[in-house]
Amino acid sequence: MREQVDLVLRGMVLTMDAAASVYEDGAVAVRGDTIAAVGAAEEIESRYEAAEVISYDRQVIMPGLVNAHTHVPMTLMRGLNDDLRLDVWLGYLMPVEREFVTPEFVRLGTRLACAEMIRSGVTTFADMYYFESAIAEATEEVGMRALLGQTILIFPAPDAADYEEGLILCRRFIEKWNGHPLIQPAVAPHAWYTATPELLRACADLARSYDVPLHTHIAETAFEVDNCKRDNNMPVVPWNARHGILETKLLAAHCVHLDRGEMYDLKKAGAGVAHCPSSNLKLASGLARVGDMLSMGLNVGVGTDGPASNNDLDMFAELHLAALLAKTVSNDPTVLPARQALELATSRGAKAVHLDHLTGSLEPGKRADLITVNMDTIHNWPHFRSNEDAVYSRLVYATKSTDVRDVMVNGRWLMRDRELLTIDEEQVKAEAAEMAVRIDRFVNERESSPYNKLVILAGLQRQESYEIQVKARLEDDAAILSGLQSPEIEITKESIYRQYDSYFFFDGRDPDADRLRYREDEFIDKHGEVFQARARLTLLGESRLEEYPNAVMLSRSRYLAPAAQSLRFYREYFDPAREVEVHKERRRWRIVYRETDFAVNLDTVKRPALEGYFLEIKSRTWSRTDAERKANLIAELLEHFQVAPEQILREEYPQLVADDTLL
Amino acid sequence: MREQVDLVLRGMVLTMDAAASVYEDGAVAVRGDTIAAVGAAEEIESRYEAAEVISYDRQVIMPGLVNAHTHVPMTLMRGLNDDLRLDVWLGYLMPVEREFVTPEFVRLGTRLACAEMIRSGVTTFADMYYFESAIAEATEEVGMRALLGQTILIFPAPDAADYEEGLILCRRFIEKWNGHPLIQPAVAPHAWYTATPELLRACADLARSYDVPLHTHIAETAFEVDNCKRDNNMPVVPWNARHGILETKLLAAHCVHLDRGEMYDLKKAGAGVAHCPSSNLKLASGLARVGDMLSMGLNVGVGTDGPASNNDLDMFAELHLAALLAKTVSNDPTVLPARQALELATSRGAKAVHLDHLTGSLEPGKRADLITVNMDTIHNWPHFRSNEDAVYSRLVYATKSTDVRDVMVNGRWLMRDRELLTIDEEQVKAEAAEMAVRIDRFVNERESSPYNKLVILAGLQRQESYEIQVKARLEDDAAILSGLQSPEIEITKESIYRQYDSYFFFDGRDPDADRLRYREDEFIDKHGEVFQARARLTLLGESRLEEYPNAVMLSRSRYLAPAAQSLRFYREYFDPAREVEVHKERRRWRIVYRETDFAVNLDTVKRPALEGYFLEIKSRTWSRTDAERKANLIAELLEHFQVAPEQILREEYPQLVADDTLL
Repeated sequence: MREQVDLVLRGMVLTMDAAASVYEDGAVAVRGDTIAAVGAAEEIESRYEAAEVISYDRQVIMPGLVNAHTHVPMTLMRGLNDDLRLDVWLGYLMPVEREFVTPEFVRLGTRLACAEMIRSGVTTFADMYYFESAIAEATEEVGMRALLGQTILIFPAPDAADYEEGLILCRRFIEKWNGHPLIQPAVAPHAWYTATPELLRACADLARSYDVPLHTHIAETAFEVDNCKRDNNMPVVPWNARHGILETKLLAAHCVHLDRGEMYDLKKAGAGVAHCPSSNLKLASGLARVGDMLSMGLNVGVGTDGPASNNDLDMFAELHLAALLAKTVSNDPTVLPARQALELATSRGAKAVHLDHLTGSLEPGKRADLITVNMDTIHNWPHFRSNEDAVYSRLVYATKSTDVRDVMVNGRWLMRDRELLTIDEEQVKAEAAEMAVRIDRFVNERESSPYNKLVILAGLQRQESYEIQVKARLEDDAAILSGLQSPEIEITKESIYRQYDSYFFFDGRDPDADRLRYREDEFIDKHGEVFQARARLTLLGESRLEEYPNAVMLSRSRYLAPAAQSLRFYREYFDPAREVEVHKERRRWRIVYRETDFAVNLDTVKRPALEGYFLEIKSRTWSRTDAERKANLIAELLEHFQVAPEQILREEYPQLVADDTLL
Repeated sequence: MREQVDLVLRGMVLTMDAAASVYEDGAVAVRGDTIAAVGAAEEIESRYEAAEVISYDRQVIMPGLVNAHTHVPMTLMRGLNDDLRLDVWLGYLMPVEREFVTPEFVRLGTRLACAEMIRSGVTTFADMYYFESAIAEATEEVGMRALLGQTILIFPAPDAADYEEGLILCRRFIEKWNGHPLIQPAVAPHAWYTATPELLRACADLARSYDVPLHTHIAETAFEVDNCKRDNNMPVVPWNARHGILETKLLAAHCVHLDRGEMYDLKKAGAGVAHCPSSNLKLASGLARVGDMLSMGLNVGVGTDGPASNNDLDMFAELHLAALLAKTVSNDPTVLPARQALELATSRGAKAVHLDHLTGSLEPGKRADLITVNMDTIHNWPHFRSNEDAVYSRLVYATKSTDVRDVMVNGRWLMRDRELLTIDEEQVKAEAAEMAVRIDRFVNERESSPYNKLVILAGLQRQESYEIQVKARLEDDAAILSGLQSPEIEITKESIYRQYDSYFFFDGRDPDADRLRYREDEFIDKHGEVFQARARLTLLGESRLEEYPNAVMLSRSRYLAPAAQSLRFYREYFDPAREVEVHKERRRWRIVYRETDFAVNLDTVKRPALEGYFLEIKSRTWSRTDAERKANLIAELLEHFQVAPEQILREEYPQLVADDTLL
């Protein structure tokens, strides 16, 4: 009496199990969402009675591929800008994200990305983006398996004004989706350098309390590693470890610049690594030492990264590249041979994303996540049998993603004979085309903007921060100077400089960039001599997020570029609607007050000559709670410096000067 | 009155001309084999009356791709062996080549490769292999354009026993094909390290006398460059330059390890470089500095190399990889942007292979070599227009070779709507499958062979040489020792060693490997002490090519491996049919006689104890003419050493010993 199953697939079966079993004439029995049995066709058919039997000729039946790191909604920005330095590229991309990223945007992007991934044989992907719950809904509808990480970072994000909101959103996301048959929610702090230590710790705690994976970027660029060593006196993995990140089910994306100790720490922590070769090459991030990681036994998977930086989601191309690249990096053509490369995209990739109990190989009890691949193509011809690894060679070195014919996830067909069954491809394409038209229009409108003009100049850098600050106008500086001598205040740095600012105003041509500042700084030594000078351009966009009794919380975004040309040149080049000049002398103290850093500026405005002194007290901040605390400290400092409420100013210098000039 | 043309193709036209002209709604007019005009559709249609008009919607019309370096017949060995060290891989591959490569083999391999290349949008390729005239016939029949280089090297090749025969074959090949509308013959000295200086010079002269290109491998590995510096006191490009190679229309394949001076020399010489990123990565050869070459203005093309080391002929994948890799090599993501990358595979690639007067861009007067590429795919969606280079980004970073729809070469359609028109694909696949069965059988038969057993041991090296040698048995050594003192002979090196040889015989199990020698060498210093010892295994295959009155010309192929195990182990491992032991003491002199190097060995055989002395005089040789000259010099030396004709031996030691034992 044979056991009943729903489906038997017959053909050459590549299991990718621990023994690398291959059944030349094999079969896979599926019951519901689960693999009931895998083996020789004869044996399976003698044991199981199937409602349906499908025979595959000259196709391989194998596990679906695992894309270990991506940002699926960014598929909607594929090819918008390429071949740029990372900072310049982000400079183009981030305003588009700020403008367009909504739940509807990420849903559409997810459907577009899933269509491409299913077509190229991916059944599981690990994502990190905003509005991850909307991504989960779209993924569930499409029927793919995914590890979805809700992004949390210290900057304002499309779905959260600050990180506290981000943490709340992430917790709700986990509670909603945890235990879903297809969706595994995860916590996704973007990276250590867009997080404070407290935020990293909060993310690690959140992941551990729900026992869900944590997905983050680690050691993608040498610049990042240098910064970490400079700021924290240690490389990136120990810094993450210190804040609890290695105590989670970690998925570490990129890992381009790790030393052997860091690799070992990740291995010991049971972490997965998402190796993203295309993205690392395209952004010139460097070459990950995959051979070393594998020889240490690390669970390395392969990821496409987001298609805005790849520009596709083709895992066959990605694993091919991973296999080629590892050889050159190790200077040894035997490193990462075809069979092992395929493991990275299947069984080991599933381990990397912490979903190997469900997927990554064809084994009884795992979910039925499988694909069939046509081997009867001219680009994969002829076939040799004398080498038992030849089938892996064919799959890794010559198969194209377009050779994938059928795709099943969780026992459900998502593609048959290259026909998508759960996505209306034409509909998705039409909606994506509409979105592209809107993005094009937005970008074109910015084309003549100061921002775009600034981008064309070399050396653009982007800065984004929250600041809490207060400004006041004083009659004399005595109370400040004596107040700074108080034992409650520790001065960590003191400097004097002259600032010659020219503000260009564009009168709303670009909402993100209301003014451009050309500034020459002269740094003055203790003898009153100029010992250093520099000139730079800063494009300032600023929004007031919160008003406190004596202070204001600002979100500042700035783009800085060194000014190598003359003021006259920039005036012609940017063609401002109007211009305001401010020359001032600034004394600046960096102080610590109640264990908190503040900057205190005491300015005298020389041109136009303004009476009295201008005081600024400011501090960087990372969240509303922190801002509130600092606003209270600022109130204490104002009292300490004997500043009266009526002395508080709301205006910035150009406006102040303009007002003053009008008087 | 409109001019008459045969065909107008209408759609988005990417010309890849010097101005990078793109016609959104464009047209290409074709008359016979030639492009009559390219421009805006309206303008073309007002000027030309076409017998046929084809409109392409959502496809790009662009020049066909140029594959700047390959070995097309090796497609028949795709995936036979992968993930091996270069020497081991060659160890597997070369016996297969020796056994199978015939005109029929290369014809079949060419048709298989052309089918794949046409499918992936290649219209021109640059080849280097054996029986190039048969490759030309197959290419002409298929209708592709090609630069075909007849390989010449100092080793016996499938189509030439020595390089003189190779040169004659190459001259005939050029005379037959020069001036053909599709086929451009070329001279292809394999590489400087498989050529003598005279051979390089002869190839350069041949190429110049017919004004045809010269195709050779240059600086593919660091090992090659180190050897060149060690042996010739200069890097690879100057060494080639010294022998006239840079005075030809040079196509230099690989160029992975060049210094800036060498790049400049190639640029000055108008040479083309074939960059082969997949092959270089897969064999761990290194990373070519393409960014530097391009900034110097070098004509760099992109090549797939042979599919035995790639494993495909997919130029879209190859140019994608080239674009990604160059950024990381230069540590700058702005290097080799998409538009320039596409140039490498079209206009600049055509320059690299010296065929830019005919192909590489859509311009009036050039041949109609063009393709259409479907842009309406999910993996290339959406499309942005705000960035004018977006179409290049789409083609380089997201297009797959399977998106190519139509292919025309020289005004003739080779593919329409992915249907090949000049190749019977099923027929080619069936023939290739038969060939694979034969190769599998051959490899399987070798599986149990000493050769394959040797390959499994680490450190295998291959040596192949021609030698001219004589052997004699003498009663005493006086005449030799005094003869060596003559002023006509200069001794450059003298050594004494004891050799303990065990010969394993396999009695014809493998024709390429009739015996394996386990040898321990003890080197003796002037005090009679052993100062160095080594043990190694040598698999010897030897064929007598030519008998001269007093000498014989041998083609020796040897595989050497260090012997780290005991003789007992090897005896069990190789399981020889019989074994012969020979212990001897050898005195060896390296001498120069009439400006020619010879080795003189004077042996006494200790076990079995043989009477008298054994003399060997030998010299490496590179061609029959050279062998003949050296045979004459050997005759003079024999006279000089007072060796009588009846003292000459024809047997090698093991045979001699066996004979002697029987007496």
